[in-house]
Amino acid sequence: MSAREAPYDELLSRIFLTRVLEPGDEAGGRWLREHGAGEVARRLRDGGEPLPGVSAARWEGLGARAARAEPERDLAVARDAGVRFVMPGDGEWPAQLEDLGDARPTGLWVRGRPSLRMWGLRSVAVVGARACTAYGAHMAATLAAGLAERGWVVVSGGAYGVDGAAHRGALGAGGATVAVLACGVDRPYPRGHAQLIGRIAEQGLVVGELPPGDHPTPSRFILRNRVIAALTRGTVVVEAAYRSGSLVTARAAQRLGRLTMGVPGPATSRLSAGVHELLRGEATLVTDAAEVVELVGGIGELAPARSGPVLPRDLLEPAARRVLAALPGHRSAAPPEIARGAQTTEDEAIARLYELRALGYVERHDDGWKLTRQAVISVREGRS
Amino acid sequence: MSAREAPYDELLSRIFLTRVLEPGDEAGGRWLREHGAGEVARRLRDGGEPLPGVSAARWEGLGARAARAEPERDLAVARDAGVRFVMPGDGEWPAQLEDLGDARPTGLWVRGRPSLRMWGLRSVAVVGARACTAYGAHMAATLAAGLAERGWVVVSGGAYGVDGAAHRGALGAGGATVAVLACGVDRPYPRGHAQLIGRIAEQGLVVGELPPGDHPTPSRFILRNRVIAALTRGTVVVEAAYRSGSLVTARAAQRLGRLTMGVPGPATSRLSAGVHELLRGEATLVTDAAEVVELVGGIGELAPARSGPVLPRDLLEPAARRVLAALPGHRSAAPPEIARGAQTTEDEAIARLYELRALGYVERHDDGWKLTRQAVISVREGRS
Repeated sequence: MSAREAPYDELLSRIFLTRVLEPGDEAGGRWLREHGAGEVARRLRDGGEPLPGVSAARWEGLGARAARAEPERDLAVARDAGVRFVMPGDGEWPAQLEDLGDARPTGLWVRGRPSLRMWGLRSVAVVGARACTAYGAHMAATLAAGLAERGWVVVSGGAYGVDGAAHRGALGAGGATVAVLACGVDRPYPRGHAQLIGRIAEQGLVVGELPPGDHPTPSRFILRNRVIAALTRGTVVVEAAYRSGSLVTARAAQRLGRLTMGVPGPATSRLSAGVHELLRGEATLVTDAAEVVELVGGIGELAPARSGPVLPRDLLEPAARRVLAALPGHRSAAPPEIARGAQTTEDEAIARLYELRALGYVERHDDGWKLTRQAVISVREGRS
Repeated sequence: MSAREAPYDELLSRIFLTRVLEPGDEAGGRWLREHGAGEVARRLRDGGEPLPGVSAARWEGLGARAARAEPERDLAVARDAGVRFVMPGDGEWPAQLEDLGDARPTGLWVRGRPSLRMWGLRSVAVVGARACTAYGAHMAATLAAGLAERGWVVVSGGAYGVDGAAHRGALGAGGATVAVLACGVDRPYPRGHAQLIGRIAEQGLVVGELPPGDHPTPSRFILRNRVIAALTRGTVVVEAAYRSGSLVTARAAQRLGRLTMGVPGPATSRLSAGVHELLRGEATLVTDAAEVVELVGGIGELAPARSGPVLPRDLLEPAARRVLAALPGHRSAAPPEIARGAQTTEDEAIARLYELRALGYVERHDDGWKLTRQAVISVREGRS
């Protein structure tokens, strides 16, 4: 075994591996679990012996990819584009992704201010057909706006059709949305959504497994769906023909024990046929955001919203603490007022508000935000 | 106790009681079970002592109705209108109505050639909103035609909207349909459906609990729904607003252990809201007749269709035997040809074909009918 240069640290090892392993590679995930990312990266980089049980052909194929990987450069390119790399063990890593087992991402590239971990706590996926009908687009936008108004984060895939309508619906309601892409997050796909995805990165989060500049492929689209399913508490399919990619997300959600929901449509619509098939199985029929929240809010809370904040106030990040301090005691306030009080931008304020929502400190109230009763009590009693 | 005239026999007693007791009167049903129809009718007619546990006021109210009852006249009027009275114990009584317990009908007035018992064996209810949309009418007609084409009898309430579309869909496919009315079957309601209901009586069955000439009332509409639910293997709701009468039928079907099904529609449609509510509960989503048949055909068969005929051929009624004999041995035939062979009318032939279908002798095949494999075998082996 020859060591050509100093070994990568965990961060560089994992960035290196996002160039070498395809998303969702369960064998690769097992190697990482058994040998550690540093050791797997070192052996691949330095052309060492294959890991036990790995065929020579496979090892050679991976080696060819490894030879072209430049993790320091990827990291620099990403940083220039305002993209960070979040990996298991980081404070921002969403714990629920562990449910993917060996198919969990090696790491995630993230664009945007909010904490992916915080936002993931109270998130719902809204997905569906690219070539959706006007009805599908209307339902996606309405559902997403309603979810955002109730303080929920809307996750989708950034695609044309239902995905785009969902992101726009959430943004239009001044709400939180996350796009999970099947390509490098610095290289938005589809190109026609460059502006929309830019706006999501400003006001929300753009996330993906692929390193900077990487392209989407059919299998990457399919495997991206498992991240959407795992990140969220439940998946709503708005319109989907038989054998549509959204059904893959829905079935992944079911396997992960997440809630699967479907919006009904005319029985005569080819674009509702896939949703109806889901609804004849385990999925639950939903017709508005209130019904979705009733379902996803009812399952074991990942966040302590119902019983009040549990993370003490002085453990909050400074930016979040400033936003919390800017909220009036007994009324709601709109984001511009809160942003002024916290001496920050409106997008930054919204990012922190949704994190505070996930932690049970604040709630949405019509067009504004206010402290939860529990947050007021905890302040009054000096509990935090 | 004074006997002013000879006691009624069972038939006249029950006809008398259909004038005195309202449909679905469970106390009345208990009296009949405990004392027999003859005794209850005699006591009410002759102004005898109240039955044990019945208040004087209630008894007096029933007595006033009893004083105006003329069962011999009702029977004569009915017979002139081609209406027969079918009651528990008769060969034509549908056994599944016993599931209603003390709310079972005292008897049913029936117009039309087929045997209500036979037709009930393989029947499905298709019900829904009166003020349905064009989509609802389309779905009702398409489902009913598809059910009829598969040899199933379509039961509905004869009302405007979904009911009418279902009846017309079945008739249009040369199929079998039953209208269960909330008024005297000689006095079709709604008036605008007089022609449709006349056609159902020619080609199918018109059935009701109310004696000749009697009017529908809101509570009679509601209680009629339990008969539709109990008669059929399952109920499909096509369009229904919240708190619609069709939901009463669907819930009655659920309580009776029948299958409840719903046709989805746009989440934005007020007329699908009631159906979606059902689908969020125990009901199953269906989008075409094949899905309905898959469900209702799968539950414990009331008829022996799957294992072949069990009622020996020589126990069939002569008219059914003639139709059976008119079927060719190795191909399918259309109703006109079968009618010629059986020396009868096409409507009569269709009536018998659906009975024979329920008994497992014949099956629909495209536009015609043919012997089932089991029927062919049983002839060849001289088993019937």
